[in-house]
Amino acid sequence: MNDRPHLAYARSLIGQPGSRALIPTPAAVLDLDAFEANLARMAARAKSAGLALRPHSKSHKSSAIARRQMEAGAIGVCCAKLAEAEAMAAAGIGAILVTSPIAGAAKAERAAALAAGLADFRIVVDHPDGAAELGAAAQGPIQVLIDVDGGMGRTGVHDAAQAVAVFRAIAAQPNLKFIGVQCYGGHWQHIAGANARAAAVADGMAYLSSVLTALRQAGAEIGVVTGGGTGSFAADAAQGVLSEVQPGSYPFMDRDYREALQNDPDGAFEQSLVIATTVISANHPDWVTVDGGLKAFSTDGPLPVALTPKFAESAYRYFGDEHGRLARPQGEAVARGERVDFAPGHIDPTLDRYDVMYFVRGDTLVEIAPLEARGASQ
Amino acid sequence: MNDRPHLAYARSLIGQPGSRALIPTPAAVLDLDAFEANLARMAARAKSAGLALRPHSKSHKSSAIARRQMEAGAIGVCCAKLAEAEAMAAAGIGAILVTSPIAGAAKAERAAALAAGLADFRIVVDHPDGAAELGAAAQGPIQVLIDVDGGMGRTGVHDAAQAVAVFRAIAAQPNLKFIGVQCYGGHWQHIAGANARAAAVADGMAYLSSVLTALRQAGAEIGVVTGGGTGSFAADAAQGVLSEVQPGSYPFMDRDYREALQNDPDGAFEQSLVIATTVISANHPDWVTVDGGLKAFSTDGPLPVALTPKFAESAYRYFGDEHGRLARPQGEAVARGERVDFAPGHIDPTLDRYDVMYFVRGDTLVEIAPLEARGASQ
Repeated sequence: MNDRPHLAYARSLIGQPGSRALIPTPAAVLDLDAFEANLARMAARAKSAGLALRPHSKSHKSSAIARRQMEAGAIGVCCAKLAEAEAMAAAGIGAILVTSPIAGAAKAERAAALAAGLADFRIVVDHPDGAAELGAAAQGPIQVLIDVDGGMGRTGVHDAAQAVAVFRAIAAQPNLKFIGVQCYGGHWQHIAGANARAAAVADGMAYLSSVLTALRQAGAEIGVVTGGGTGSFAADAAQGVLSEVQPGSYPFMDRDYREALQNDPDGAFEQSLVIATTVISANHPDWVTVDGGLKAFSTDGPLPVALTPKFAESAYRYFGDEHGRLARPQGEAVARGERVDFAPGHIDPTLDRYDVMYFVRGDTLVEIAPLEARGASQ
Repeated sequence: MNDRPHLAYARSLIGQPGSRALIPTPAAVLDLDAFEANLARMAARAKSAGLALRPHSKSHKSSAIARRQMEAGAIGVCCAKLAEAEAMAAAGIGAILVTSPIAGAAKAERAAALAAGLADFRIVVDHPDGAAELGAAAQGPIQVLIDVDGGMGRTGVHDAAQAVAVFRAIAAQPNLKFIGVQCYGGHWQHIAGANARAAAVADGMAYLSSVLTALRQAGAEIGVVTGGGTGSFAADAAQGVLSEVQPGSYPFMDRDYREALQNDPDGAFEQSLVIATTVISANHPDWVTVDGGLKAFSTDGPLPVALTPKFAESAYRYFGDEHGRLARPQGEAVARGERVDFAPGHIDPTLDRYDVMYFVRGDTLVEIAPLEARGASQ
């Protein structure tokens, strides 16, 4: 995809004052000042809470972002899937935790190959058969964590007895090295209200503690307890059960988090990432058409909202695969070619539609970062 | 992306009996028998109606599909955006119509470069300024069509007077060659009921005819009248205003079209394309978790529906970015590693999430086709 003409054109713009306004749209555009402030803020919070920070790369899919997170104090990254981890590893990221269980011999072999090639590779398992598959594929020691379901029901062992059964299956594999536990509560992250969120996390952490106790009674030495997200950081820090947190969205933010976390320390991150679009048709009396639609955003979250001041009161709606409909601002003319920036509804599946992210400093394009793991859900 | 380990593994499977069941998931899997039947059916319908067939590549983004469509009788393809056209052109497709207006000098220059390099390049304009920009960038003759809004309000001239103004702006540019008109009614395609759909198309075509009359009175020679989609084919053929049709979804189908077009000749295409997933966690008593979620499907249409018989009664819902939740079938055990195929809700933005499409014949993987224009919305 690197030979696409619009990317060649964009590369010719790097460093030119005013070049932000010329980036070919639709485009994912990152304001580095706001992004760096977000990274520093989360790193400082983790440090002051005594928590290791392992941001989730499923949000950004880019080694350029992962590297900056690690330069700002992160100890490594999380990856949701093997293919995401493979893309990060190929781009030079050496410390990776795969946060989803895998199934089948072919995937176990790919995990084993990653473990053999990386300085620090870790992966979760949630079933004795998963441990057996991984052990059979291992070329050398593989660090594994037991994935514990904190009530979301997506992955993880379902109770303490299952946790102990998986621990024994891991211990039976000479090449598997048990290092700890993961418990991610995706269902806690977007609860509105800091107190309600903290109460849900407290219940979850009490349950997790009971699982940890059962594992220790079975002989497990628990080095790492990883979990948590952008929304639950304050509660995770207060509970003191986790040793490591996995936030993903904080470098960028989105409408989903903005609305759930308003007036709340967990929400005090800036909207650093926008989707830039261009008005391509302006013939209708009531609205104009921009070049970002169903393929420019994910549609599972709230609707994108225009950030460009002229359009601050203009409602957006999807207008098919490739276009969006934006209400005309009252009393102002709009011309073909005008640019409109949007805050996306849900950042992770939106960024997963883009091959690159454009880094800007003020009004200048300064870098074009590949999203090496885009689409890498396998 | 071609060096991803799961793709290398998939390539090693090509031609092996039973290899369909080993394709790394989530994956877009095309049943060639059903696909070829769909191509033949649409080609026969177009031929018998005397309509030129120019399928829309925004649905598939793949030159391998475009080439098969042209071998089955299509005269070329449509592309929604310049970057999509650039990717198709780079992959050897020589006859392309860009169906969205563009704005700005940089995009006009890219269109001019495409026109200079292709055997048959065409693009729509819907504003006098668009004609002026394109004329200024032209390196030689560029074929242009006037985009007419048939009532959807997305792009296109708003009335006959605007159409004539754009025609005059085209005529004023020595390098622009006016060849006809486009009128695409996206809002007609999914109207439920063949009669209701036909009535809406008839009203639209009556309006289009009035615009064509005004253009002819202004001196326009109208060679091409292009429009129409998978849903409106029967009505388009009956009305006789269009000379060329632009269907996109018919090679694959999806739940959106399936539900709108049931019991109707426009819907008589097979579901040839599925999203294949794998059960990666099965610890919960009520459901299992598959490896396809918000990044494996587009979420604007109906929910994906499981086609694998064992799960035919199992409701699917999204379970975060990377996972889906599928109800357990009554009275049957489900194991990690079982595979589940889904019909996607809306095919175009779903396929736009995938780098490749896996072509299968029966249970055998026979080809891995790149989606060269995936993500090419610029």
